[in-house]
Amino acid sequence: MPHSPIPVPSLRRLPVYLRSLHAAIEQGATYVSSRQLGAAAGVPAAQVRKDLTWVDQEGRPGRGYDAVALAGQLEITLGLRVPKRAVLVGAGNLGSALAAYPGFAPCGLRIVALFDQAPSVVGKNVAGFTVQPADRLAAVAQEHAVDMGIITVPADAAQSVAEAMVAAGIGVIWNYAPTTLRLDPSVYVQNQDLAAELALLSHQIVRRRET
Amino acid sequence: MPHSPIPVPSLRRLPVYLRSLHAAIEQGATYVSSRQLGAAAGVPAAQVRKDLTWVDQEGRPGRGYDAVALAGQLEITLGLRVPKRAVLVGAGNLGSALAAYPGFAPCGLRIVALFDQAPSVVGKNVAGFTVQPADRLAAVAQEHAVDMGIITVPADAAQSVAEAMVAAGIGVIWNYAPTTLRLDPSVYVQNQDLAAELALLSHQIVRRRET
Repeated sequence: MPHSPIPVPSLRRLPVYLRSLHAAIEQGATYVSSRQLGAAAGVPAAQVRKDLTWVDQEGRPGRGYDAVALAGQLEITLGLRVPKRAVLVGAGNLGSALAAYPGFAPCGLRIVALFDQAPSVVGKNVAGFTVQPADRLAAVAQEHAVDMGIITVPADAAQSVAEAMVAAGIGVIWNYAPTTLRLDPSVYVQNQDLAAELALLSHQIVRRRET
Repeated sequence: MPHSPIPVPSLRRLPVYLRSLHAAIEQGATYVSSRQLGAAAGVPAAQVRKDLTWVDQEGRPGRGYDAVALAGQLEITLGLRVPKRAVLVGAGNLGSALAAYPGFAPCGLRIVALFDQAPSVVGKNVAGFTVQPADRLAAVAQEHAVDMGIITVPADAAQSVAEAMVAAGIGVIWNYAPTTLRLDPSVYVQNQDLAAELALLSHQIVRRRET
């Protein structure tokens, strides 16, 4: 697996800085300080400066970062300016929500096809897509040179869907099913486990009740 | 804000360990080693043992952790056994998906009501809920002693929805709108920015093309 040289915690903050920069630019700002960027991300200014050493853009002491230039460099570092194609398997509620999500296109992501294993769903129109049978995955992935597979099927179906994606030549998987996929280490899997996210909130809620 | 004493990276891994434990228990395991838990979470065994010092359960050298006991302790630490109530504002695709998500109930979360600001959506049935007008939020939050507000409205509506939640006495917010909320520091906000998550994947896709 080609490991990213950017440490994951830093990498996770870069999109947050980018969002802050866009908001600042919209409000007419020309320069943005590391303190301002840190406030939005919940980290000290020193951490922002450290994170931004991974991005090819230097700040000026006392002035901060050129907002437009830094936003551009962040977009390049994050690969947002490069067109990317994804397929989505699992056309239920979550799959429909993701297929219709307006925040992906500005990041260069185009979902090219939706699949489902249930015959009752195949052929239906979901978010502007005609849902295709899952066995068409390989053909579509090759035809469109698909980069990423998004999995929104139930947990017990996720492993076989992931294996089909890998067999179709897809090397990056965004997994929304609450299960751990067992795949070749060369495949990059990002798990989006909503129940695990909820666990963090749950911990917080219970702590607040105790205080 | 009552900060959790558990460092966030450790806290984020606890639900992953819990999921592995449930899988192991289902497969008949009695003891689970820190190495096994680490494999699923992508961290070394030593990190697992360090993370689990925050949980009131000791492993036995050479044998590992009692799987059922550790799962139980993790559920307690994460507050999953305590019933929690949430309201959701924004009954679009994403809101509908979350309202219907089956993974929340086992974590003790019950969504008690769905709201929307659009008159065309109010009164509709979404995932078994009759969508209520947003101005009923305060009354419902107080009636049901709601712990958490889930925001699935577009970015430009999120700030006012969040303020309404805080005014209704809600202290924990799960924000799916791609925007940074400006709220009193006593409010705990967890941002679920799908575009930011996509940025991490995007970075990975582009790196893979380069290698």
